[in-house]
Parts: sequence; C-alpha cells; structure tokens
Amino acid sequence: MFENTSGRAELSELGEFGLIEQIKQSVTIYHSEETLKGIGDDAAILDSKGQLTVVSTDMLAEGVHFDLTFHPLKHLGYKSVVVNLSDIYAMNATPKQILVSVALSNRFSLEAFEELYAGMQMACKQYQVDIAGGDTTSSRAGLVISITAIGVAKKEELVYRNTANSKDLLCVSGDLGGAYLGLQILEREKRIFLENPAIQPDLAGNDYILERQLKPEARKDIVEKLRECGVTPTAMIDVSDGLASEIFHIARQSGLGCELYENKIPIDPQTFERAREFGLDPTVCALSGGEDYELLFTIRPDDYEKIREHVDVSIIGHMTDASLGVNMITKSGSSIPLKAQGWDALLNKER
Amino acid sequence: MFENTSGRAELSELGEFGLIEQIKQSVTIYHSEETLKGIGDDAAILDSKGQLTVVSTDMLAEGVHFDLTFHPLKHLGYKSVVVNLSDIYAMNATPKQILVSVALSNRFSLEAFEELYAGMQMACKQYQVDIAGGDTTSSRAGLVISITAIGVAKKEELVYRNTANSKDLLCVSGDLGGAYLGLQILEREKRIFLENPAIQPDLAGNDYILERQLKPEARKDIVEKLRECGVTPTAMIDVSDGLASEIFHIARQSGLGCELYENKIPIDPQTFERAREFGLDPTVCALSGGEDYELLFTIRPDDYEKIREHVDVSIIGHMTDASLGVNMITKSGSSIPLKAQGWDALLNKER
Repeated sequence: MFENTSGRAELSELGEFGLIEQIKQSVTIYHSEETLKGIGDDAAILDSKGQLTVVSTDMLAEGVHFDLTFHPLKHLGYKSVVVNLSDIYAMNATPKQILVSVALSNRFSLEAFEELYAGMQMACKQYQVDIAGGDTTSSRAGLVISITAIGVAKKEELVYRNTANSKDLLCVSGDLGGAYLGLQILEREKRIFLENPAIQPDLAGNDYILERQLKPEARKDIVEKLRECGVTPTAMIDVSDGLASEIFHIARQSGLGCELYENKIPIDPQTFERAREFGLDPTVCALSGGEDYELLFTIRPDDYEKIREHVDVSIIGHMTDASLGVNMITKSGSSIPLKAQGWDALLNKER
Repeated sequence: MFENTSGRAELSELGEFGLIEQIKQSVTIYHSEETLKGIGDDAAILDSKGQLTVVSTDMLAEGVHFDLTFHPLKHLGYKSVVVNLSDIYAMNATPKQILVSVALSNRFSLEAFEELYAGMQMACKQYQVDIAGGDTTSSRAGLVISITAIGVAKKEELVYRNTANSKDLLCVSGDLGGAYLGLQILEREKRIFLENPAIQPDLAGNDYILERQLKPEARKDIVEKLRECGVTPTAMIDVSDGLASEIFHIARQSGLGCELYENKIPIDPQTFERAREFGLDPTVCALSGGEDYELLFTIRPDDYEKIREHVDVSIIGHMTDASLGVNMITKSGSSIPLKAQGWDALLNKER
C-alpha cells in the first residue's frame, strides 16, 4: 500500500520512503468514519456498516488512453479518478474510496508527480472520496495509472446491466460525441504543431468539447436526481466506449432487443459543427466515439412522467423483445441494424 | 470492469468483447455467497456481512519487477496474485476477491494471455479467492499488471504496523534472502545465454531459491497457525522490500527502537551457499533482498511459549524504547545501527 515496491526508485532523491510520505501528507481524508485506515499499512480498512461494497477498477495507459503532449497531468489525474467513479455511479452506488497505483518512468519529475496527484485530489474533493492507498513503481516505459474505486449501496438500490425489461424506455444523460470531437481537435493541433512548431495551437471556440475530453465529470447529479424523483432505473451502464456498444451490453445481457431513434440522440451544437468540419457523421461520433461518461439507463414506462421535467435526460428509444434485434430508426425513418462500432468503424466512416 | 477500454484492441481477432468473454468463461467463482456479482457489470458487488473490508493494491511492471526472459507467464500470474494476498494476510485478514488489470502490447498472443490468467487462477484456487473483475487494455510498451486484493476481518482481529510495544519479541516466518539469490542465478544465466546462445542455462541445484523467486507463496498458514495457538501479533507486516526496511516500518510507526540478532536471522543453506558464491554477505541478502513474502511480526513476551513449538517461526530480536535506536547485534557481538538498505546499498556491498 503506497510502498515503492520497485526498490529502484527513479525519484530516489526523495529518500526511500519520501515519496510515500509526500503522498500521505498531501492526501486529505474526507470520510474518516468509513475509512478506518488509509495510506501507511499493508492494506486499507473500510467499514461499510452493513451495506454492500461495490468495487471497480480501470487502467489508463500512456499512448493508448492519453497523450501527454495535450493531456495536462492535473487534468489526467482528475479524469483517471472520474472514469472510475463513473462505474460506481453506474451501479447506482456511492463511491467512498479509491486506491491509486501509478507506474512512471524517470523522465517524470517530482513536480509532474505532484501535478498528477493534485488532479486526483481535486476529483476526490469534488466527489467526496478518500484516497485510501495505492502503489507507486518505476516503469521502463510510459505512464500507467490503475485506479480501483470502492463504493457502498443498499442491496435494493443496486442497478445492473442485465435487468432491463421489454417496453422499458431507454434514457441517456447529457449529450454524446463531444469527448471524441475534443480529441480530434487536440490531435489535429498536435499534427500542425509537429509540422510547424511556430504555429500556436488554435483551440478557440472549442471549450466545451475540449473539456469533455480533458476534464469529464461523472454523473453523480443524475443518480441523485433520479433518487429524488423516486425512480430506480431497471438497468444502467456508463457510456465509456460509445452509445452503441453500451446499448448492446444492456440489450444482450438482459436478453432483449432495442429500438433507438437517431433524432433523439442528444448532440451538443459544438459537437455537431466540429463533426461536420472533420467530415464525420455526428451520429456516428455519438454511437462510437466513447469517453462521454454519461449514464445510459432504462426505466419503466410509468416512470416517464416522473423524470420528464428532468432536463438533462433524453429518452432515446425503448427496449423490445430479443427477436426484433437492436435497431436504429434513422432520421429518414428507415430501420437499420445497429452495430457495436469501435474506433475502426469510425475511422473508416462506415455507415 | 473487464472492459477493453482502449477500443483499439491488439488482440482484436477475438472480436470486440471476445477477450472479456474468454476471461469470464475461464474464471471460477469459489465463494459465491460473498461475491454477489463478478465480471460483467460496471463493478463487482461484495457482501462482507458486517465484517470490515480490507483492500490492498500492487502493481508489477515489466523490466522492473519481472523479466519475461526468465519469468514464465504462468508463474508471473501466480506471483502477481500472491504478492497482493500477502498484504491482506499481513493485516491478519482473509482475502476473498481480487480485481485484475492488465496492460499488454500486441506482441502478446492470446495463448500468452491465457498462460498469465491460468497462473492467476492457480493462485486463486490455492488461496480460495475469486477474480471478481478487472480491466484489460493495450499498452504501447511492456506488460503491466495491477491487482487489488479485497479481504475481510473482524475489527478485533486486525493487526497494524504501528501497534508494537517495547519488549515485544520480533518474529519472522520461514527464511529470508532466497528470492533475491534466485534472481541472481536467473540474471547470471541470462547474461551467459546472451553472450553465447549455445550454452544452456544451468539451474541445477538451485530449485529452492528459484522457486522462492518465481513462485512465492503467501503465509496464510502462519496466520492460521497463530490463530490456532491463540496468539494475536501486536504488529505485523509482510517482507516485500527486505527485512531491514520492514523492521523500520514497525519500529518507526510504533515509535520504538529494535534490537535484531544477526545469528537469529533464518537463512536457508542454499541461500547461504549461493550468496557466498556470488561474493555477497548472506545477512545483507536477507536484510535487503526483498520479495520473500514472509511475515514479520511482534508478539507479547508472554506469548512466546505458545508459539515456541511452531517450527516455522524464528524469534529474531525484540522491540526497545525509541531512544535506543534500531540496531543489529552482529555475530561477533557488536551492536551496529541497522540501515534500511535498498538495492543500491546491496549492489555496492555496503557494510
């Protein structure tokens, strides 16, 4: 637990346990009654007081999930926490602690490390979550961040992926495709900069989609609002890989089909415009872009009136019998089978 | 949770969710009453039935913690689980589940991946632990394995690092330094092989120390035996970084000093002989070698009689007041200040 297990520390000027001390000192514990023991022993001790413990883990690797030329370390720290908390909220649970493991090479300075942790701390403060432990190690290659999030829930509150019913309404929070377009902007400006370092990056007018990519939020507010409205989703998942593949998770695991309405998919005007500029179909960006961290969930048709006033949720379709398959009704009114498109499909502008 | 979050899977011939399915199918759940939900949702759900939840995480990086030229993937999978469970046992708790995150590059085949998981499964079976979830992602560089272990304990059973008392006896299980000497053998044979690939590695006569390095075990048996004997350690830690630094953890965090007897440090004859052959001091190997995963703990002097018959524990010293410092009484009878020597000290043959 926050031991430098490598023994061959690259940040060794700090002294043998200096780095761990550094982390211990900078960590604020927000919920001491549930975090009995944090950093500084073999393991953290959590007291969930008879509730169920919900755990999730996600790993982010340099060159795959982020590019340090345009992902500032503080934002990266923030995002790496948020993507994990998002999984806990998607169970309709409340995150309480995280464990943080970081592998980093000696090209990182102590200041860089502090930036990363400052971002993690910001997210912990925002979501009232404790850093209860972790591990730091050197790496021969890039930066790898692995976070485990731990939450609590009452058994009756938990929402799974496989419990949707036929005729349930399909809902999604916020809007989709923005994080993907933000990434396109960042990669374009990086290419221009590499070709001609004299040209400054032009990021003006893209604030919203850049923030969607660089500093996403977990939809804690949606989980809370639904609870206030007295609505428990019948199934729920967070949108990390793109709307299409998340719909498939719910449909397949629940043994159902789904009808999705293209014209109901929420897309922000900035996302829409930038997609057009890049020659991309905005719908495809929403279906396959990923990293939006919105919540996709199903509700009983009766519950529609209760959440109707809830402005930040869109009804985008409904569940059907499995025999009908998973289809999208396009803007022109035709029904086409939905594909769980990944990045490859997107890059080939399939459809 | 066991989602391929990269979206750019290198093992893509398996299909989008094929790898996750592969893992789901190969995972056996041992304790279903405590693992309410495993792989296949946003998070795993654990029911610890009013007990405290104990969590620990460790990250292993290629080129730092292991060398794939001599760490077979199955052994590596086994070891990566064991080192995490060892942290849970060191709290006097019982591990119940693990979450496994793996970043791997496209030079790995599906078979290699299966080997790694087969080793993890073996460890899970050995220690009756469930793989409750995880994450797989591609990596631009080496293999990185991050495991979070989750255990349970009653509050009164938990043993911390900072609760030793002056005059308590210092005990260690098994023997020390073997894993480090095993590594020296493997690195020597690798160098010889690289210089002349016609020469086959000569590993004969080193079975014990090679197993200590390649397939260590967590001392579940010691935790159980102590419980049977009715002895609760006053402080405990596992020996991952070497005896010296673990003694310092207990002493400093408990606000105490310590007197360690060099002639009481348990060293296997094979470890001793190989250390001499390498021109290394066997005591230094035990103090600073690390990766032994034995348990270092303190007990009340009164409890000595109860564990005396327990053959696999050595009394190696006792705790003192902080003002006396942390010292080792050498074989020649002189008292020297102990240093929390790391690898650097070891390589320079300090002392």
